[in-house]
Amino acid sequence: MEKLIIVKVGGKVVENPQSLQALLEDFSKIAGYKLLVHGGGSMATDMAARLGIETQMLNGRRITDEEMLKVVTMVYAGLVNKNIVAKLQAMDINALGLCGADLNFMRSQKRPVKDVDYGFVGDVKEVQAEALAELILQSGVVPVLAPITHDKAGNLLNTNADTIAAEAAKAMTDYFDVHLIYCFEKKGVLRSPEDEDSVIECINKEEFKQYIEEGIIQSGMIPKLENAFDSLRCGVKKVLITKASQLLTSGGTIIH
Amino acid sequence: MEKLIIVKVGGKVVENPQSLQALLEDFSKIAGYKLLVHGGGSMATDMAARLGIETQMLNGRRITDEEMLKVVTMVYAGLVNKNIVAKLQAMDINALGLCGADLNFMRSQKRPVKDVDYGFVGDVKEVQAEALAELILQSGVVPVLAPITHDKAGNLLNTNADTIAAEAAKAMTDYFDVHLIYCFEKKGVLRSPEDEDSVIECINKEEFKQYIEEGIIQSGMIPKLENAFDSLRCGVKKVLITKASQLLTSGGTIIH
Repeated sequence: MEKLIIVKVGGKVVENPQSLQALLEDFSKIAGYKLLVHGGGSMATDMAARLGIETQMLNGRRITDEEMLKVVTMVYAGLVNKNIVAKLQAMDINALGLCGADLNFMRSQKRPVKDVDYGFVGDVKEVQAEALAELILQSGVVPVLAPITHDKAGNLLNTNADTIAAEAAKAMTDYFDVHLIYCFEKKGVLRSPEDEDSVIECINKEEFKQYIEEGIIQSGMIPKLENAFDSLRCGVKKVLITKASQLLTSGGTIIH
Repeated sequence: MEKLIIVKVGGKVVENPQSLQALLEDFSKIAGYKLLVHGGGSMATDMAARLGIETQMLNGRRITDEEMLKVVTMVYAGLVNKNIVAKLQAMDINALGLCGADLNFMRSQKRPVKDVDYGFVGDVKEVQAEALAELILQSGVVPVLAPITHDKAGNLLNTNADTIAAEAAKAMTDYFDVHLIYCFEKKGVLRSPEDEDSVIECINKEEFKQYIEEGIIQSGMIPKLENAFDSLRCGVKKVLITKASQLLTSGGTIIH
């Protein structure tokens, strides 16, 4: 099978025009088949604030009421997604911006209310990768995925971009050897949060458990790594967590 | 060649959830290949107002400064486009939402400043219809086009939705027998603006000139009809101007 590189880039890189431009230039230079998943993070928070809508986060997740759903749809699937597509087209990358509703790519279910009502947040239930895989293989299209899904009943739902990347990666394993790269603001998974050069080169599942017990891996990094191990278990060949600015160089943490 | 029906639906239909739902249900029942082009009109104006951005219109066209470009990108390519896609998916229509930057479908040029500086408004220069035509023919995809284009140099531009529909229709004539339907709030081109039943059934180019001279066809209807005649001259088989609610019934004005 051909190789497909899926790059997930977070809100902090996307919200700064210079770091976004640098990331897209690096991304455009990746040879072969590729796909980009983006967040939008604080841009949605800023837009919500301008509209007088208060942002509520819980465990790093956005509580998404009806008004906030409009904001994330506008910002992620509109502003951020189409600007990325236009910039990639300028680099002769034939980008196609999508959210999970397009081509019925990613169906989710509104998260059931238990202790917390997250509102219009979707947990992924089904990924239809065939149409997109054909577009990539036959036409060299480079999909750009915004972190919005749908429930196939007419409603859009807000879904975490790391999860979208992992689910897209898993579904694409039917058609490709998938490599998944999470780009964020650190050089990799760090042994000491303050020391940028304390990158852990490789982590397997056993070591992951150990690092959690020792308190070395904490909070937001835990779901990111759980997503990574889940992808590997479902056939993704390689997961790398690295800094956006070192996308084309070696470095980062390999999850295996 | 197979028939492709292109439906353009304006802002007034789109901004009302009931009329949008009714239009999409009718659209979903159209047999064969189809494509939807939407505006967003006053929804962008409303969102701009909420963000403290003033809307300036001139000759029915929106003056688009940098902040307004962000608003129309968010509202047209994000909020409106993805909600339409999700609603069509719920009707088992395999919709794919796009703007002109996606798949490099529609390249435009920032309008040169003469008497008026329209800002980030794009005049269409080139349409690459092949990828989209293949998606329609091979995969039964139903494209949903937002009225945003790009300049292939990394910038998005605001482009009139009627023009997008006409340009898409012309480009699709290489692959389909194209029928173009403009849906708006009147039953067709009216002989007397106050009389909903004074629909002119057919108009050819000669009659169009005559109607303008007589003052029967005025203002906003003139560019709409000029777009229609331009489409016909470039190979579109049929242009119909009708009311959104009579999309599936006979009626309206045929431009021939």
